[in-house]
Amino acid sequence: MLQPNDYPLSVQFDLAAGTFAPITSKSERRLSEMMQSFYDVDAARAIVEQGDRVLYEVLYSPFETSKSDMAMCVTRIFPGKVGDEYHMTKGHLHERDDQPEIYFCLQGEGYLLLQTLDGEFRAEHWTKGTLSHIPPMWMHRTVNMGADTLVFVSVYNLSAGHDYEVVEAKGFKMLVVEREGQAVLVESEK
Amino acid sequence: MLQPNDYPLSVQFDLAAGTFAPITSKSERRLSEMMQSFYDVDAARAIVEQGDRVLYEVLYSPFETSKSDMAMCVTRIFPGKVGDEYHMTKGHLHERDDQPEIYFCLQGEGYLLLQTLDGEFRAEHWTKGTLSHIPPMWMHRTVNMGADTLVFVSVYNLSAGHDYEVVEAKGFKMLVVEREGQAVLVESEK
Repeated sequence: MLQPNDYPLSVQFDLAAGTFAPITSKSERRLSEMMQSFYDVDAARAIVEQGDRVLYEVLYSPFETSKSDMAMCVTRIFPGKVGDEYHMTKGHLHERDDQPEIYFCLQGEGYLLLQTLDGEFRAEHWTKGTLSHIPPMWMHRTVNMGADTLVFVSVYNLSAGHDYEVVEAKGFKMLVVEREGQAVLVESEK
Repeated sequence: MLQPNDYPLSVQFDLAAGTFAPITSKSERRLSEMMQSFYDVDAARAIVEQGDRVLYEVLYSPFETSKSDMAMCVTRIFPGKVGDEYHMTKGHLHERDDQPEIYFCLQGEGYLLLQTLDGEFRAEHWTKGTLSHIPPMWMHRTVNMGADTLVFVSVYNLSAGHDYEVVEAKGFKMLVVEREGQAVLVESEK
């Protein structure tokens, strides 16, 4: 027998606005929660002291049924920099080693940074319309290097799990910073 | 150790054109392969006798890794009718009973028809931007009732499997037909 959550469900995107409805929940990530993520800690501290900043928000809609646990969310990274490093997500690794994810960029320009625990690194350049497959076992972080809000849809399984600590501990090999008015990838000194 | 197919992969959508690149394969579905799907068999036969018609095409990009088997495809249903019934996909049920799918309408207008083996039926109305979750155990078919090509992205696991025969045998309870210039849902007489 079908359970109440086994029925089809639809949401409606406003592709021009980069939002959708209905959403189940919305969360915000502030700079004060990511003080270990940006390389220029002094710049981060100075911003937070003058008033904390929302770096991105996540609109969430799970599609959990009695047999499956697919979920979808939209991440909106607001434009800006901390020092010369562009706004970005905290980044995570899936706790399960067999769980991929799909990201679909609907608006803006940026980079998807990916790195394995063995130190393999990739940067996928994103413009509107880029869809990226994140294989299992790759840490992933998204960076907004444009003037507009970067908006992307994620599709994944809830059972994948999110490990943020491993990203804080290991960091990414490359940063996305502004140099002479251009967004460039540079090696991290951490 | 990572295998060659364990690396990130991106594709680029042209959201205005409703296509993406690179694609791994492209397949076409012709009316002659769906003679049992439309209710007006005489209308279907007359069209095929005058020259077979491509109803839709599927652009495919699998993201199979050594640990996972996510896949993505874009279906493009061309506008038109067979008799007074709108162009549609053949429709399928996943062979596994724990496999959902996400559909994201990027262009056009139509219906996503869903039905369980117990006869529960739902029709989700689609416009540009509608994203639908198809729970496990629901047969699903998409209908283009607009003047433009209906374009949607699918995300699913390859291991889900496709059962087309059950849809041919059972059919859907409702059809999408034109009545007095309007697209309407009517009960099937099959």
